[in-house]
Amino acid sequence: MKITEARVIVCSPGRNFVTLKIVTDQGIYGLGDATLNGREKAVVAYLEEHCIPALIGMNPENTEDIWHYFYRGAYWKGGPVTMTAIAAIDMALWDIRGKSLNVPVYKLLGGKSRDRVLVYAHANGVSLQDAVEKAGVEIKKGFKAVRVQCAVPGVSHAYGIARDGRSYEPASKGLPETQVFDTGKYLDFIPEVFAGLRAAYGTDINLLHDVHHRCTPIEAARLAKDLEPFHLFWLEDPVSGELKEGLRLIRKHSVTPIAIGEVFNTGFDFTTLITEQLIDYIRMPLAHGGGITHLQKLAAFASFYQVRTGFHGATDLSPVNLAASLHFCLAVNNFGILEYMPHQDVVHEVFSINYSLSDGHLQISDAPGLGVDLDEERARKYPYAMASLPVGRREDGTLWYW
Amino acid sequence: MKITEARVIVCSPGRNFVTLKIVTDQGIYGLGDATLNGREKAVVAYLEEHCIPALIGMNPENTEDIWHYFYRGAYWKGGPVTMTAIAAIDMALWDIRGKSLNVPVYKLLGGKSRDRVLVYAHANGVSLQDAVEKAGVEIKKGFKAVRVQCAVPGVSHAYGIARDGRSYEPASKGLPETQVFDTGKYLDFIPEVFAGLRAAYGTDINLLHDVHHRCTPIEAARLAKDLEPFHLFWLEDPVSGELKEGLRLIRKHSVTPIAIGEVFNTGFDFTTLITEQLIDYIRMPLAHGGGITHLQKLAAFASFYQVRTGFHGATDLSPVNLAASLHFCLAVNNFGILEYMPHQDVVHEVFSINYSLSDGHLQISDAPGLGVDLDEERARKYPYAMASLPVGRREDGTLWYW
Amino acid sequence: MKITEARVIVCSPGRNFVTLKIVTDQGIYGLGDATLNGREKAVVAYLEEHCIPALIGMNPENTEDIWHYFYRGAYWKGGPVTMTAIAAIDMALWDIRGKSLNVPVYKLLGGKSRDRVLVYAHANGVSLQDAVEKAGVEIKKGFKAVRVQCAVPGVSHAYGIARDGRSYEPASKGLPETQVFDTGKYLDFIPEVFAGLRAAYGTDINLLHDVHHRCTPIEAARLAKDLEPFHLFWLEDPVSGELKEGLRLIRKHSVTPIAIGEVFNTGFDFTTLITEQLIDYIRMPLAHGGGITHLQKLAAFASFYQVRTGFHGATDLSPVNLAASLHFCLAVNNFGILEYMPHQDVVHEVFSINYSLSDGHLQISDAPGLGVDLDEERARKYPYAMASLPVGRREDGTLWYW
Amino acid sequence: MKITEARVIVCSPGRNFVTLKIVTDQGIYGLGDATLNGREKAVVAYLEEHCIPALIGMNPENTEDIWHYFYRGAYWKGGPVTMTAIAAIDMALWDIRGKSLNVPVYKLLGGKSRDRVLVYAHANGVSLQDAVEKAGVEIKKGFKAVRVQCAVPGVSHAYGIARDGRSYEPASKGLPETQVFDTGKYLDFIPEVFAGLRAAYGTDINLLHDVHHRCTPIEAARLAKDLEPFHLFWLEDPVSGELKEGLRLIRKHSVTPIAIGEVFNTGFDFTTLITEQLIDYIRMPLAHGGGITHLQKLAAFASFYQVRTGFHGATDLSPVNLAASLHFCLAVNNFGILEYMPHQDVVHEVFSINYSLSDGHLQISDAPGLGVDLDEERARKYPYAMASLPVGRREDGTLWYW
Repeated sequence: MKITEARVIVCSPGRNFVTLKIVTDQGIYGLGDATLNGREKAVVAYLEEHCIPALIGMNPENTEDIWHYFYRGAYWKGGPVTMTAIAAIDMALWDIRGKSLNVPVYKLLGGKSRDRVLVYAHANGVSLQDAVEKAGVEIKKGFKAVRVQCAVPGVSHAYGIARDGRSYEPASKGLPETQVFDTGKYLDFIPEVFAGLRAAYGTDINLLHDVHHRCTPIEAARLAKDLEPFHLFWLEDPVSGELKEGLRLIRKHSVTPIAIGEVFNTGFDFTTLITEQLIDYIRMPLAHGGGITHLQKLAAFASFYQVRTGFHGATDLSPVNLAASLHFCLAVNNFGILEYMPHQDVVHEVFSINYSLSDGHLQISDAPGLGVDLDEERARKYPYAMASLPVGRREDGTLWYW
Repeated sequence: MKITEARVIVCSPGRNFVTLKIVTDQGIYGLGDATLNGREKAVVAYLEEHCIPALIGMNPENTEDIWHYFYRGAYWKGGPVTMTAIAAIDMALWDIRGKSLNVPVYKLLGGKSRDRVLVYAHANGVSLQDAVEKAGVEIKKGFKAVRVQCAVPGVSHAYGIARDGRSYEPASKGLPETQVFDTGKYLDFIPEVFAGLRAAYGTDINLLHDVHHRCTPIEAARLAKDLEPFHLFWLEDPVSGELKEGLRLIRKHSVTPIAIGEVFNTGFDFTTLITEQLIDYIRMPLAHGGGITHLQKLAAFASFYQVRTGFHGATDLSPVNLAASLHFCLAVNNFGILEYMPHQDVVHEVFSINYSLSDGHLQISDAPGLGVDLDEERARKYPYAMASLPVGRREDGTLWYW
Repeated sequence: MKITEARVIVCSPGRNFVTLKIVTDQGIYGLGDATLNGREKAVVAYLEEHCIPALIGMNPENTEDIWHYFYRGAYWKGGPVTMTAIAAIDMALWDIRGKSLNVPVYKLLGGKSRDRVLVYAHANGVSLQDAVEKAGVEIKKGFKAVRVQCAVPGVSHAYGIARDGRSYEPASKGLPETQVFDTGKYLDFIPEVFAGLRAAYGTDINLLHDVHHRCTPIEAARLAKDLEPFHLFWLEDPVSGELKEGLRLIRKHSVTPIAIGEVFNTGFDFTTLITEQLIDYIRMPLAHGGGITHLQKLAAFASFYQVRTGFHGATDLSPVNLAASLHFCLAVNNFGILEYMPHQDVVHEVFSINYSLSDGHLQISDAPGLGVDLDEERARKYPYAMASLPVGRREDGTLWYW
Repeated sequence: MKITEARVIVCSPGRNFVTLKIVTDQGIYGLGDATLNGREKAVVAYLEEHCIPALIGMNPENTEDIWHYFYRGAYWKGGPVTMTAIAAIDMALWDIRGKSLNVPVYKLLGGKSRDRVLVYAHANGVSLQDAVEKAGVEIKKGFKAVRVQCAVPGVSHAYGIARDGRSYEPASKGLPETQVFDTGKYLDFIPEVFAGLRAAYGTDINLLHDVHHRCTPIEAARLAKDLEPFHLFWLEDPVSGELKEGLRLIRKHSVTPIAIGEVFNTGFDFTTLITEQLIDYIRMPLAHGGGITHLQKLAAFASFYQVRTGFHGATDLSPVNLAASLHFCLAVNNFGILEYMPHQDVVHEVFSINYSLSDGHLQISDAPGLGVDLDEERARKYPYAMASLPVGRREDGTLWYW
């Protein structure tokens, strides 16, 4: 088999998606998600100008070799743009492999370790009471796990809250919005939210919370400690994580499980975190972490330390990534949970999907390959429009983590 | 002061260079080097599509805030494409600061800590004898330090050797060349080369060698130990470096000084290496490491551990980066050495420069700002042409570090 | 540019201040604060007898080289007298740099990272109720952060309390006063004070407390733990700090943020504290820590560990240090908070200032250099008069930390 | 007993000495050495302006309390100026104690642990051959231990070498001399010197060498390793030592014994070094390390780790310090060796001494107290004249450790 063509499709049904399509001499093609929210065009150029010319003529069966060809062969290794491009290539090659063997990808990854994939929903409250109610809505829908975020009194922009009552979408058209945050008020308030949730729904529901990198290590340690009585499923991205040792402080002070890594890009970002047992869940998504080939290795490594997967799965990634994640999560033994936000309907005008939600779990069909497709014709109707993630500032104006 | 315009200039006088030009409402403009060898177009898109729109209207005086705006504000942090884009912005802003205050940039970085900047030259031999002779040529030119690479008998492609007798340029037009390497033969041979060099030139000349990431930790430890009698100034990139702890093994077995980091992108890549005292020199160049603002912080950090700068300075970076490096190296106390490869003459048709070589040192004029300029008219005569760094394989075909 | 003259001005408008004035051949002069409360004359002699003769003829632009000239060149390195002298030199040179380039110093340090500088006020109560009331007074004035100290029943001299109802000034004329303290009563009482404060003012106000070195590590750990429910902004100088590892015990037992270092003098005092993540805020002031040049390096180092600045800023330092601190705190990203005690009016007869307080923040004008000046004529009206900080004893008479 | 008077005597018989004289109401007085080479006047002011007023009226018997009064009571703790002042006070109080009890000080420190004190002499060669010869001269004089320094071919100023053939005195009149050094040439050459020494004098003589802070940790590790075959008694100040962890690297690579600390000022500088077993000898002299009271504690601590004393004893300290050191070294069990440089004859016009050299050891009389005296009349004939230690630069001009 030979790769004869590859092209990048950028479309914007509601939000921007970048998709790599690799075509072979056997007529089989594969899709890979190359979306890097707010930096889409850098990945497009990376693929079109530097990777696609090299892909042509390669044998798509050699996923291991091709992965290293683009990882080591780039010389300037790693980072979000590079690893998203590599992930898209890798995902598309797995799609091709599945299709060429006429099996769903999960069957190439070890088969089913479970029947369906536990996901968590989102409840974003504009007040404590609203947060409790929104969580209730998700629970009623059948979700077994809900990530709860809440507006903080006196704080302009707590993470995850849409102030106009619409569903939360962090990226906004054009230039970045500035969002202002106060860690102190947040730390005081959040434990009350989870006290309220536990009072309302008892201990059976799995509750998650995302700090979104905004705490310093000692602040995160305090929060993890203060949240202990409410037994979170996990506390996510408690610190920004560039300094891996920053997580030691959290671990020293609490037994709240920790998830991190939605902005990490390689397994090397996790070596310290895993071997020192500083985390419990890996957030790095397939689409930003080099694809199935690389995450398979990281999950293998993590399995020796009983660290599980808990992939990022917001709508900033396309159905291609979601399908790939579902194959992965079905097969790997040390799966934990998968984030899930339903795409807007318009997304499914462009992407046809093979998964469905029921009873708080996602299920996937046995269609060959990844099982999703992209209608290029329809994609053209939704052209790229610049959109940016917000920029965060502290109350005194300091540029901080959003 | 306000930024009114910014544009990216891609030109290829002999090789590809990407330059960011930021223009202000006061007529002053600044230049930043945005060249990422073999991945140029990804940085161009990153800047043009995602950064420049945000730059317009900013006050260029606020370099600290702007740095964090693009670093933290990108959300997906770090990596070569991102950090090269940020470096170019930062460098251009320092150029503007210098010009607007009418002083050379080094005067804004603490003034002169020395009068001139020690550099090292390159000697790449096709045989042991040729390596010794080539080193002699550089010594005769007045260089006090020479990096020596040598073809290894029985090995197709030792790093750094041009087989056609011309000056060594790793990138080739079009797609990557494949280069084949054997670590075993290399490890046996290299100590002989340095024995030969010491026999020929005694102990006064500073000798450097670049492993170029090709060894495993234990191989690197062996090489560092075997080279001890020849007292290298440094051994460079002995391992690939994604696993920071990999350097512990080298350090445990030898006192050969270690330089690393030409493919690193942030100071966070160095925290373990510096605090555990695993390295002696920082190779991360301004142009790939977030610019002057970030390297100033890393050099400050390193100074507490007597770790010095030894920036990458091959011709894959433009005269803009070289000038910025010279200002930096003139000012910072814990400077060690700077790599230097002269650009081809055609480069200076496009870029006018403010530095000159004599007696193995570079000197820089007192022109305001960085002191280099780019002739956009002439740049247009040398359009971009795709070029790629090689891809490395071991003798059995394994994709390895080039 | 050349330094043609330098002189030390000692004056005592209400309290002793030592100011270094460095004059250049271009008529520009710079001021540096050289005040070391209770040891003023040692710094005067250090500067006059040993540094000033060497300064004459130097180029004031070379701040990095001059810093090391006095730091390494002294041979006997570090300590409060030496580092205060070096700080004064460095501060004056930055003042000169700013004036010669006609910009405020913060524009040389990276521009504005924020518009104004958050400060904390002081409330020193003679009783629990008085402490709560005094804090209320500061909150009403608009302060967002208040350090609260309180007399302890049965203890002669809790730190920070003026028993005569006047504003607190630790130094007294002539020889040191002896102050008697009991750690046990203090540990029992202080959590009640903060319970009272939180009951009165809720969670929004930032509360700080200064242990002033008086606890042993295990006592400090108990206090930090007992104060957790009241969520201090920081607990300051919980132990005396000569033994850096002493802070491990505190960190092991609590998530109360820790600030330390107002009696430290170099960044080397912080390497263990920062890399082991034992502290959250750096208290070392510019005037005692080698000036802007050295603190810029330490802040850079600290930034990799999310440790922030929280400089000492009592009235024992002159307006020159305060102005320099404001420039620094405006520019550095990892600024946390600045201590602020207003100088008596008589101080401003001698020193003209460029900063003002509003809404719990300090703002600074865009005057070139540091922006403060000293009227030497008026300074002469307030001659030096020996004053000393107290000496602390435990109840059994043991000489202890004051 | 009460202190009725105290004064500082500065004299310069050949070189500057600062002596503190404390007088009691019983007519007994004590002497303390307060000399801080090149920073004398700062200590004078520290004592005269800030300490002496407080000393008057104190009971000199309470050495422990008085020590803490000045150490903790200064608030701004430690550093060379402060600790030299405290050392002088402490030494003078021990002199008074001895005199008032009519016993030599060593009898108050535990009596004799040995009969005489092993010292090491200095041999400073202008060439390898000269170094060997100079060492031979000292051996012939009966010295059992010799520190050997040697000029390095191609290096302007190796440490410890007088180029005019006179005895070595580092301080020069007036401003600091600049001395230029090259670490690379030094590292290549020094092992040859010790090879030559061992070849000439066999293994019985104890050989020492002083790196004088000029190496980075990895350079020091190399030197310590390269010197292993020559079995040094110690390698001194291999690194500058502000970063204590810097010594780990040396220890990892060699079994050459290490001495450090002639520029340290408190026992806290040694906690890491001792508990991690990074050193073998303590160089901090009584006169700069807080006196007998503090060094007694440090020696006690060190004894638990089999670390010994090896005090700095160059002629920059007066006979008062030398006498105090001899009492100390006679009494303490974990004594190692003492540095000894004979003072010029003119010194003994001012200071009368109680010690004498024979057979490579110093012996001390049983005169009460320290046993040395100062003739104030004669001291006046030798007024203070500013003198400075050199400032070191690397060959490229970088300000470095002298």
